Amino acid sequence: MSFQLHTASARDGDLAQLVGLRHKHFIITLEAGTRFESHRGIIQHDDLIGKPWGTQVFSHTGAPFFLLQPSLANLLVDLPRTTQILYPKDIGFILVTMGVGPGHTVMEAGTGSGSMTTALAYAVGQAGQVVSYEIKPDVQNLARKNLTRFGLDSRVDFKLRDIEQGFDETNADSFFLDVPNPYDYAAQVRAALKPGGYICCLIPTFNQVEKTLYSLHRESFAFIEVCEILLRYYQAEPTKLRPTDRMVAHTGFLVFARRIEPSQDPRGKELAEEVGA
Amino acid sequence: MSFQLHTASARDGDLAQLVGLRHKHFIITLEAGTRFESHRGIIQHDDLIGKPWGTQVFSHTGAPFFLLQPSLANLLVDLPRTTQILYPKDIGFILVTMGVGPGHTVMEAGTGSGSMTTALAYAVGQAGQVVSYEIKPDVQNLARKNLTRFGLDSRVDFKLRDIEQGFDETNADSFFLDVPNPYDYAAQVRAALKPGGYICCLIPTFNQVEKTLYSLHRESFAFIEVCEILLRYYQAEPTKLRPTDRMVAHTGFLVFARRIEPSQDPRGKELAEEVGA
Amino acid sequence: MSFQLHTASARDGDLAQLVGLRHKHFIITLEAGTRFESHRGIIQHDDLIGKPWGTQVFSHTGAPFFLLQPSLANLLVDLPRTTQILYPKDIGFILVTMGVGPGHTVMEAGTGSGSMTTALAYAVGQAGQVVSYEIKPDVQNLARKNLTRFGLDSRVDFKLRDIEQGFDETNADSFFLDVPNPYDYAAQVRAALKPGGYICCLIPTFNQVEKTLYSLHRESFAFIEVCEILLRYYQAEPTKLRPTDRMVAHTGFLVFARRIEPSQDPRGKELAEEVGA
Amino acid sequence: MSFQLHTASARDGDLAQLVGLRHKHFIITLEAGTRFESHRGIIQHDDLIGKPWGTQVFSHTGAPFFLLQPSLANLLVDLPRTTQILYPKDIGFILVTMGVGPGHTVMEAGTGSGSMTTALAYAVGQAGQVVSYEIKPDVQNLARKNLTRFGLDSRVDFKLRDIEQGFDETNADSFFLDVPNPYDYAAQVRAALKPGGYICCLIPTFNQVEKTLYSLHRESFAFIEVCEILLRYYQAEPTKLRPTDRMVAHTGFLVFARRIEPSQDPRGKELAEEVGA
Repeated sequence: MSFQLHTASARDGDLAQLVGLRHKHFIITLEAGTRFESHRGIIQHDDLIGKPWGTQVFSHTGAPFFLLQPSLANLLVDLPRTTQILYPKDIGFILVTMGVGPGHTVMEAGTGSGSMTTALAYAVGQAGQVVSYEIKPDVQNLARKNLTRFGLDSRVDFKLRDIEQGFDETNADSFFLDVPNPYDYAAQVRAALKPGGYICCLIPTFNQVEKTLYSLHRESFAFIEVCEILLRYYQAEPTKLRPTDRMVAHTGFLVFARRIEPSQDPRGKELAEEVGA
Repeated sequence: MSFQLHTASARDGDLAQLVGLRHKHFIITLEAGTRFESHRGIIQHDDLIGKPWGTQVFSHTGAPFFLLQPSLANLLVDLPRTTQILYPKDIGFILVTMGVGPGHTVMEAGTGSGSMTTALAYAVGQAGQVVSYEIKPDVQNLARKNLTRFGLDSRVDFKLRDIEQGFDETNADSFFLDVPNPYDYAAQVRAALKPGGYICCLIPTFNQVEKTLYSLHRESFAFIEVCEILLRYYQAEPTKLRPTDRMVAHTGFLVFARRIEPSQDPRGKELAEEVGA
Repeated sequence: MSFQLHTASARDGDLAQLVGLRHKHFIITLEAGTRFESHRGIIQHDDLIGKPWGTQVFSHTGAPFFLLQPSLANLLVDLPRTTQILYPKDIGFILVTMGVGPGHTVMEAGTGSGSMTTALAYAVGQAGQVVSYEIKPDVQNLARKNLTRFGLDSRVDFKLRDIEQGFDETNADSFFLDVPNPYDYAAQVRAALKPGGYICCLIPTFNQVEKTLYSLHRESFAFIEVCEILLRYYQAEPTKLRPTDRMVAHTGFLVFARRIEPSQDPRGKELAEEVGA
Repeated sequence: MSFQLHTASARDGDLAQLVGLRHKHFIITLEAGTRFESHRGIIQHDDLIGKPWGTQVFSHTGAPFFLLQPSLANLLVDLPRTTQILYPKDIGFILVTMGVGPGHTVMEAGTGSGSMTTALAYAVGQAGQVVSYEIKPDVQNLARKNLTRFGLDSRVDFKLRDIEQGFDETNADSFFLDVPNPYDYAAQVRAALKPGGYICCLIPTFNQVEKTLYSLHRESFAFIEVCEILLRYYQAEPTKLRPTDRMVAHTGFLVFARRIEPSQDPRGKELAEEVGA
């Protein structure tokens, strides 16, 4: 297990983050006897192991670094990637809205570089399970490598498939669908979800949102919500407190919905319409 | 345990959410032989137990409800409260940024109505621990009641104390500080955190942010970030896709920082300044 | 002329704004010998005429008011209306982007309650001209009444027509199109605009924006921009500086474009594509 | 006069904008017998004069340009500058809120590169007047050059002075104060404004806003509002409609207030408090 908790110091086997000048970050796994090399010099892992987290360390050329234990957000931001990664602002809201937590079984398609896979595997814990579908072998391989590095691979079942064919699983607690055409798979996702379960789609354009809403209605999803999360940073200077000059203005729209059971009971017609069923 | 996973149907002992017309929500715990009463009529729990999640049910007067398994966000939004609650948009970002996950020990002050306590207890799982300080007994009692109802109370150590006196714990993985004067407790929080550990403060005004930044610098916190999360909803109608007319424009500023170990090494001076140490 | 400038005191014939408790506003035209009546009591205009702007005045029941000279924004916000009015945040950006100024000839459809008509007439001055088309007589009447009250009616040519039939004018400097189906009138607007002239559409939904973009491309408009303006207020308390809790989250999307002359010259193909021609 | 209105074609003496590939912009004044030179080649002004606005033209090397009549926003964005310029989003809202229009006398300090000066001179028209104070001669010179180029200099009275000493004018209709320490000049601005007149300050940081609010209260300004304007652009592609990836997140906070006449009448106490007097 790579995330040592309640520990004051770095230990052999821990994930560590080295933060150097000009916000240069490195994520490494500490391994006695090996060394970290960058254009800023060499550091022996043995010189890091045993050091309190939050201390400064120096390469053989004297370049300074802070030795930190990476948080989930640190891992996500530094993830080796070939595809667009997800942002902590979106991931956090998705996890809380769908209630992803320890012991859950959560599904995902596509895997991509594994940023959401990482967050899901982290959140469901050792008792949970993530099933992640991807169509491209090389993309899946990178994700698997990322998860392995974080010690989270045992929580993930990676599957290579065109999800047009549907999923092997049923009764999943929730489903995160991050593909260019989510509107083509609403029926397949419904079949994989438990009754009442949540789907979340991350969607860049309004045109795709429009199509997705139609498909969710058609496949008896309801309680549909469309939203987006904006993150605004401020200069952290107490004498010059102000928003930063520029910001990320768009990552994607989030579409949430729940699988409901359609009913013909006339007493429920008004409610069904109100919740979009 | 109140959160039954991978289950297609409601069971005795489950937390359930009944959603009626005009967005009226009720969170209940299913208990065979008892009944749910509201101004919209009576429903026997025995008529709910065994029903698939996501189905419509009706009170004795014919009022319709959807029977749903509440997600974490559903619990948070419907939390009985006497104090301001936290919003899922903020909670999600806080959890991911500090990396709160299964097995963690997380601290909090003050407890308030227990919305963050609920989210933390949910996220750390059965192997984790939340230590939550509060100064007002009646406020603490409500939070304890809320957590008990959710079956999460065994994960929380509730403490009644003026935190001016400091905390009993050390080496906490992270700390969520939600009090009107966070700037008065930076030293106490530092002592409770493990080296490198995260603090997060939720702060309504700029004046308080300003003071908090000074106190964090003084107590050797670094990697300070100030930000806010905005949540924008859209009308979920495919033919009339547009942002909603009004939105919550402010809940609070989030100030994150990490406990670092101060150093006098001149080689590290520039980096220390860059990260605000 | 109702807008007396550089005057320290209220004069007979001036537009005035009375602001009472709990943000109750009244716009009146001062007229010697008449009186202002509201549920907060009576004030003789003669008691207002001659008073410095910015002073407190009192009704016969002692209800206090501030006597102010209304700015353009004050007029717009208090405009008697039957249709959705435009907001100063949008109006200001539209005027500057299209460069509406003294002496311009600006066109508009539909007139609505006359909020944009007011702003345009105000901006073009006595040497300018506004031509405003509307299909509903009663809507036009209210707008005319509003403009007359503000002393701006002589600058406006109100026309009653289904704009499907096109416009009488050519060579207008700019055109503000605020109808539910702007995409049906791009050709008509093009014919009314001078070469290079600006069109601006205010559009509530994405579905309408999508259609409008197609129609603008089809009718040889280019330099198309889609944007929205958000206005965030802060509590103006120096000790509790913070954003207000809620805000107007959406009024409409603004689509700007310019009439360009199509060309077949192959040397210009790349540029034409770049600017969307 | 450089802004020819209702004209279909470019004329000798007109301001013109040439827009080339990759959003390269040039603002020029057409002058028969002269030529425009850039690294993209040469164009004779005589080849532009008489051309319809909105047509494509080509340099001697075949580089394509669109010939456009610049709007106010085009001038502002391309203004030669040594200081931070103002953005159309802020300028538009300021003009409408303070009601700056034809015939007004508006004051400003400091002049800076003249972007607000340009907008004010444009809005007040030939019958209006702008008085603009600046402390640095070279900054003032650039602004004067910019205004002269736009044919707007005759509407502006440029004054070189440390505004600590106060202003020569009284009864100005409104005042735009854009200096680093606006809180030091509230008394001076009050003396220059007509009763009831508007002040607007553009302020980058919260610390400055805080101080400014205190100074405005002290000098009998009321109806104070603090706000900011955010401008969000969308990709103007009908098949891929979405917000742009990044945006300008902060230019400044706008603080508006009105000069009111203080009163001791006890009947007006509650209202005075409500409006911040």
